[in-house]
Amino acid sequence: MRILSILTLALIITAPACAQEDLPKAQADRMESRIQELSQYGRNADGGVDRVAYSQADIEGRAYVIQLMKGQGLDVRIDSAGNIIGRRAGSDPSLKPVMFGSHTDSVPGGGNYDGDVGVMAALEAIDLLNEAGITTRHPLDVVSFSNEEGGLVGSLAMTGHFKPGALSVVNASGLSIAEGIDAIGGDHTRLNDARVKPEDLTAFIEVHIEQGGILDEEGLEIGVVEGIVGIDWWDVTIEGFANHAGTTPMNKRRDAMLAAARLTVAINEVATGMEGRQVATVGRIRAEPGAPNVIPGRVVMSLEIRDLDKDKMNRTFAAIQARASEIAKASDTAITFDYVDVASVPTPTDPRMRAIIAKAAENAGLTYQFMPSGAGHDAQDMATITPTGMIFVPSRDGVSHSPNEFTSPQAMANGADVLLRTILAVDQEGL
Amino acid sequence: MRILSILTLALIITAPACAQEDLPKAQADRMESRIQELSQYGRNADGGVDRVAYSQADIEGRAYVIQLMKGQGLDVRIDSAGNIIGRRAGSDPSLKPVMFGSHTDSVPGGGNYDGDVGVMAALEAIDLLNEAGITTRHPLDVVSFSNEEGGLVGSLAMTGHFKPGALSVVNASGLSIAEGIDAIGGDHTRLNDARVKPEDLTAFIEVHIEQGGILDEEGLEIGVVEGIVGIDWWDVTIEGFANHAGTTPMNKRRDAMLAAARLTVAINEVATGMEGRQVATVGRIRAEPGAPNVIPGRVVMSLEIRDLDKDKMNRTFAAIQARASEIAKASDTAITFDYVDVASVPTPTDPRMRAIIAKAAENAGLTYQFMPSGAGHDAQDMATITPTGMIFVPSRDGVSHSPNEFTSPQAMANGADVLLRTILAVDQEGL
Repeated sequence: MRILSILTLALIITAPACAQEDLPKAQADRMESRIQELSQYGRNADGGVDRVAYSQADIEGRAYVIQLMKGQGLDVRIDSAGNIIGRRAGSDPSLKPVMFGSHTDSVPGGGNYDGDVGVMAALEAIDLLNEAGITTRHPLDVVSFSNEEGGLVGSLAMTGHFKPGALSVVNASGLSIAEGIDAIGGDHTRLNDARVKPEDLTAFIEVHIEQGGILDEEGLEIGVVEGIVGIDWWDVTIEGFANHAGTTPMNKRRDAMLAAARLTVAINEVATGMEGRQVATVGRIRAEPGAPNVIPGRVVMSLEIRDLDKDKMNRTFAAIQARASEIAKASDTAITFDYVDVASVPTPTDPRMRAIIAKAAENAGLTYQFMPSGAGHDAQDMATITPTGMIFVPSRDGVSHSPNEFTSPQAMANGADVLLRTILAVDQEGL
Repeated sequence: MRILSILTLALIITAPACAQEDLPKAQADRMESRIQELSQYGRNADGGVDRVAYSQADIEGRAYVIQLMKGQGLDVRIDSAGNIIGRRAGSDPSLKPVMFGSHTDSVPGGGNYDGDVGVMAALEAIDLLNEAGITTRHPLDVVSFSNEEGGLVGSLAMTGHFKPGALSVVNASGLSIAEGIDAIGGDHTRLNDARVKPEDLTAFIEVHIEQGGILDEEGLEIGVVEGIVGIDWWDVTIEGFANHAGTTPMNKRRDAMLAAARLTVAINEVATGMEGRQVATVGRIRAEPGAPNVIPGRVVMSLEIRDLDKDKMNRTFAAIQARASEIAKASDTAITFDYVDVASVPTPTDPRMRAIIAKAAENAGLTYQFMPSGAGHDAQDMATITPTGMIFVPSRDGVSHSPNEFTSPQAMANGADVLLRTILAVDQEGL
């Protein structure tokens, strides 16, 4: 395969560089057939996949990706964190690689597009370059990150932010992260070797399904991601007084459930009452003692706030706290907010990358919109070390992490077209 | 003991009947020392009791009650449902017994007053009659019902309403109801033998702690119970659409949690917005999938409505349903109410008994108030076969089913004084 790679290189060096408008278009059929092939690995009865990182299905899906990369003449390696990196050489040895890709592991009961589309778009871009006989100045690194769904493990290791304490966490594969990294060809004892320094990369680009319904609903083809939102998370405890639901008159109750309900309504009012795209969610709730015939004395519920702007997040929380104080006073309960330290700060994408992606979409004749990513991605880690851009394609009804995920072949091809044009713009014009 | 009983009887037949104002007063010290003795059986580290029906502690507590009854000269038997019945003979063989009592089993982690006070007040009334040398015309039956906390087993059996399907239910004692009944001296294969027909009883009277905070808060000594409230219970399901809490804008959510919160607030507004003492409670809630980062697609919560008036209960529910329809429409969710068939209908006490109890409280120089019982009691079963009255004494802060239950010795004695005067009024004046 190494020989083939050099051979391919020799052939394409002789080809002239194309202007962007002359570039071949991504082949929707080819991308769809690869997505279908990949979806065989871990396929479940619902038509989705159980391809949890480190599982046999994950190992088989990764083998398929490696096989495709090698077929394209890429020089493939697995780093110590289990990330698959396929390199296409550039013409200027002094330049550092442009990296692009996503992941192929899934959540339990996942679908066939989250992550997969980004890897297949990266491979499609390589095919298009190969077919057009284009050699870029920069080396190109196609990456398929390891264990994205289990906590961005591969990209955290690559950027030096992986916390070794997490190595013992066991996921649905039955393996710990340490065992899993070793099972997919990495080496958890040498995670530092996976680290890539800022000076070793030119840029990072990720194509991903939107996971929201905005593009789908508004009939837009491309989302130019402004950044990955920050997440703050609290456990909110409402302390009232548990009492008999039959013998305690309504006006003598200190009902933690009622106060929690008022707070949930207030959280929604605060989040929707301010300008902007901030979101606030109560996703989990537990009432104690939790019997139909007992007024709850204690309710614990989650509060999650996300936005691209940390100040906006802080203001949203402050407004919620103020409402909580009023509710606690009126209902004779105590409301406390305990910050859960698994939060993440907002990560803007590189403004130059956004402009390049928007222009690439225009050049490809596609409609687009600037938008935040409400979900976390490997790109948020990569943004800490290199100029990073993200390209969204529509996901039907915004569904993700579900067998019902669907992105059309043409929508995937649109993503690959924008990716290819973005790569070439970075390669030829710089940032 | 039988000899002693006849001897006592012989002595008191010669004594004149007292006018109510001349009656001796209940001895608070004696009642308190008996409560303390009883609380040894099943005592737990919190100062309360674990005296769950059929447990060793329950068996020991019952033995103590039987010993007290025998010491008073009562003719003691255990019926096939495990109810302990101690009879004091009357002077008129044609009259049917007046029955009074309560229960001594507790919930797990229970206190020292719920049920116990009613049994000790009944025994105190017997002591007072013995000491005053009064023989009633009617026989008197002191009853300690079996397994009240586990579903009114003893009184349901006595009134012919026990459903044999429940015999296999296992409680915290580790025994099924069938095994438990046999363990305490009953015979689950002959439950019908425990049945008492309407023509076999004159009346039933139960003294009990209030289990609400009304008497305690208002400084009243006696509650004249108007009836035991009915209970209706629904599982309420709110169906929205589970979605990513980061990628789904606030205005595109179908948030089942938010709709559940609005409904919980509306339930409170309906229950407090109508005249009357109806109560409505959301005690249990489950959100699915129940993660901080997922908008709940489904919430199931309980709704319980109680009142003395079934019409009022129906109107309360209808108003809640109307609010639910509005909320479902506004939030693009579906809200359904599934009736849970463990409900009970309101059970009024006998109006004549209420008047007699109120007069008895006046004669004893005690303050009183008419009030519903929000909790269930053996009296609600007995009311289906015989004129029934209930006498409440204050419970500090309305606490029950807790080691923190407390009723003062004098409050217990007040209950015994009213009980004795009620028994004598029924005995001498009829209903």
